[in-house]
Amino acid sequence: MASKVVPARGMRDVLPVEKARREHALHVIREVYRSFGFDEVETPALEELSRLESGQGGENEKMLFKVMRRGLPADEPLLPADAADLGLRFDLTVPLTRYVASNAAALRMPFKALQIGPVWRAERPQKGRYRQFVQCDIDIVGEPGSLAEVELVTATHTALTRLGLTGTTLRLNDRGVLTGLLEGCGFAADDHGSVLVTVDKNDKIGLDGVLAELRAKGFAEDAVAALEKSLTGLLPLRDVARLGDGALPEAVPAESVERLQGIAAALAVSAPDLDVQFDVTLVRGMGYYTGPIFEMSLPTGGSSIAGGGRYDNMVGRFSGRDLPAAGFSIGFERIIDELALPADPAGAIALVHPAGADAGALLRRQAELRATGARVALVKQAKRLQPLFDALVAEGYSQVVRARVGEDGALEFSDPAPLTAS
Amino acid sequence: MASKVVPARGMRDVLPVEKARREHALHVIREVYRSFGFDEVETPALEELSRLESGQGGENEKMLFKVMRRGLPADEPLLPADAADLGLRFDLTVPLTRYVASNAAALRMPFKALQIGPVWRAERPQKGRYRQFVQCDIDIVGEPGSLAEVELVTATHTALTRLGLTGTTLRLNDRGVLTGLLEGCGFAADDHGSVLVTVDKNDKIGLDGVLAELRAKGFAEDAVAALEKSLTGLLPLRDVARLGDGALPEAVPAESVERLQGIAAALAVSAPDLDVQFDVTLVRGMGYYTGPIFEMSLPTGGSSIAGGGRYDNMVGRFSGRDLPAAGFSIGFERIIDELALPADPAGAIALVHPAGADAGALLRRQAELRATGARVALVKQAKRLQPLFDALVAEGYSQVVRARVGEDGALEFSDPAPLTAS
Repeated sequence: MASKVVPARGMRDVLPVEKARREHALHVIREVYRSFGFDEVETPALEELSRLESGQGGENEKMLFKVMRRGLPADEPLLPADAADLGLRFDLTVPLTRYVASNAAALRMPFKALQIGPVWRAERPQKGRYRQFVQCDIDIVGEPGSLAEVELVTATHTALTRLGLTGTTLRLNDRGVLTGLLEGCGFAADDHGSVLVTVDKNDKIGLDGVLAELRAKGFAEDAVAALEKSLTGLLPLRDVARLGDGALPEAVPAESVERLQGIAAALAVSAPDLDVQFDVTLVRGMGYYTGPIFEMSLPTGGSSIAGGGRYDNMVGRFSGRDLPAAGFSIGFERIIDELALPADPAGAIALVHPAGADAGALLRRQAELRATGARVALVKQAKRLQPLFDALVAEGYSQVVRARVGEDGALEFSDPAPLTAS
Repeated sequence: MASKVVPARGMRDVLPVEKARREHALHVIREVYRSFGFDEVETPALEELSRLESGQGGENEKMLFKVMRRGLPADEPLLPADAADLGLRFDLTVPLTRYVASNAAALRMPFKALQIGPVWRAERPQKGRYRQFVQCDIDIVGEPGSLAEVELVTATHTALTRLGLTGTTLRLNDRGVLTGLLEGCGFAADDHGSVLVTVDKNDKIGLDGVLAELRAKGFAEDAVAALEKSLTGLLPLRDVARLGDGALPEAVPAESVERLQGIAAALAVSAPDLDVQFDVTLVRGMGYYTGPIFEMSLPTGGSSIAGGGRYDNMVGRFSGRDLPAAGFSIGFERIIDELALPADPAGAIALVHPAGADAGALLRRQAELRATGARVALVKQAKRLQPLFDALVAEGYSQVVRARVGEDGALEFSDPAPLTAS
């Protein structure tokens, strides 16, 4: 026997019912973002290795799939570092940065970009996580004001609502608030990264866990105690409007707070059904954020389904320009299981026919049925009909038309009848 | 100065106007094939190198992008052949073969598959050809009869027509006809491949060129002379129905001719506006075809925009099963330039606003305008308006709404006005 034939390790095939759901969702997302004036662009899957290893990708750079140089002499040994020149992108942000540099002359600023596409990471395979997955990012480049954040959130909220994902919550914070808070508590600037990694775990390990981990990391007790006091006061504070009332240490810049309040006030107008909450423990992993950060979650809770923030000074790096930028990314692989696939509105019909039936007559009848807008599949008759019908129902077919060869040799067709599973 | 930032060699970015055209076309193609009951599947970009190098891909296997094993010790030299374990797919046929083997239990036969996705080939870069490009294939697996070919052609013809590509011609031939013809002329079976490579050039070098090349290749003069006689008689013969009247050498199997005639007769019913022609010089490059082969071209002529045929015995090879199969592939990169992008039916409006304008008020007005179905972009006012308007017209915007700060400090909006280029 041949060994089992499976996709490459950590990869998977997407089967028809799920693929239809994915393409439907992507179409809705595209249409909504386009209606907000976002411009879709496409960048190649492969980028120069030197760009992918420029430090912008953090931990993701360690999970690169590297592509070998072409035309290497087969009999000359070489070191791995000399064998590769390209890599598969691990996110859509490095390619956006490269795109902005490559197409600077064609960009109308602010540039509002949509990118949807696969990315690859050689992660340790685990259930439900794959080494190739789709990212769906919008970014606004060249807008320093909060209008960017408000547009990103409003458009994404609209897209998710259109997909049936309603009742979402937006948790909002600002890197300036976090930095000011840690500074006010007495943490040295060099330690902020490490402290934030721990604060980021509040969701999972709770405040007590966060404080214990900070102490275990050896931070000064008075700084940890000050942070405990601040967080205890700020954790229940969900209303961004109340942040100004002396709730935050003085070291937190007023402009960070005003920026958050401006965003929340605008969203109350542009996305009135979105629940916007301040969350002082929202950190977002990547180190490149410079201002407001935000995540969206479903009313059922669980991990966030979209996340983003402002990351000035990064998109311009391959261009040698200082460019303000903010982005928002839908966790496409996370939302896809939450979506119900809408039934074909005009129905789906299985046209069941005997083997060897007259192709012209079959396709003419198919065309007549398709003209009503229905999806119509030619399905070869099986010896046992009920297992076939069960499969068709699982594939979304709701009606059946039977073709049979009449006494005169011509095909005859039944009227459409409901298709029922056993 | 930093060096010029460009995509990796042979790769390219797709800019917004072209990307919108591509996504529109893909959506139409998906919808049409789905309405014919084709099931879209997705396979990963990376496959095991051993599968990609199994011989099925012909010349394409030489253009593989190979992916390095992960976790290779950095200081141990190794031969290129030992460094890679995966490759980027060079077509969608090898992945389909692997998919059929991996998902055999879930397949309802005949399996009617749609696959759309990028493929990669390390070809010598040349104008208009890139190392990453999109293929769009449909395949019917498990149907030995001509119904498969008729469905493939009818569905593809419908999709192309829906895209505005009308007046197409289908050129039709059969590998059995070609084999019988060469046999009848006295060419040895081992030489058929080489003879067909030359016959395939008839489009470019004409019959005289074909005969000269065959003689230069050293084939027996009486075989070449017999072929000249046959081709001279068959070249003007475009009507498949007339093929039976002794036009072909006796060595051509009657079943091949009857099969072609059956396909043409069914297409006359299912795709009456498709011009179906016999073309004895149609060869199709890949050696794996086993029966009918066909190509579709535009009335403007030029290279074909879709091609396919029957290739029994290949799709089952990773499964160890004998499976009949036929496929048809749209030359997506070839048709994309032929398509006019339909304008946004409800219009596209540029909402031009001053910097720092009230985000809530702007997005509320945007939502009101979007509610009419229009695409509405927030566009920051530029010092010089006409260059901005010119850019917006080029991007497809047809109307402009101006926002200004009124005397009371609130935003005021003009009525929509036509947007005109200078």
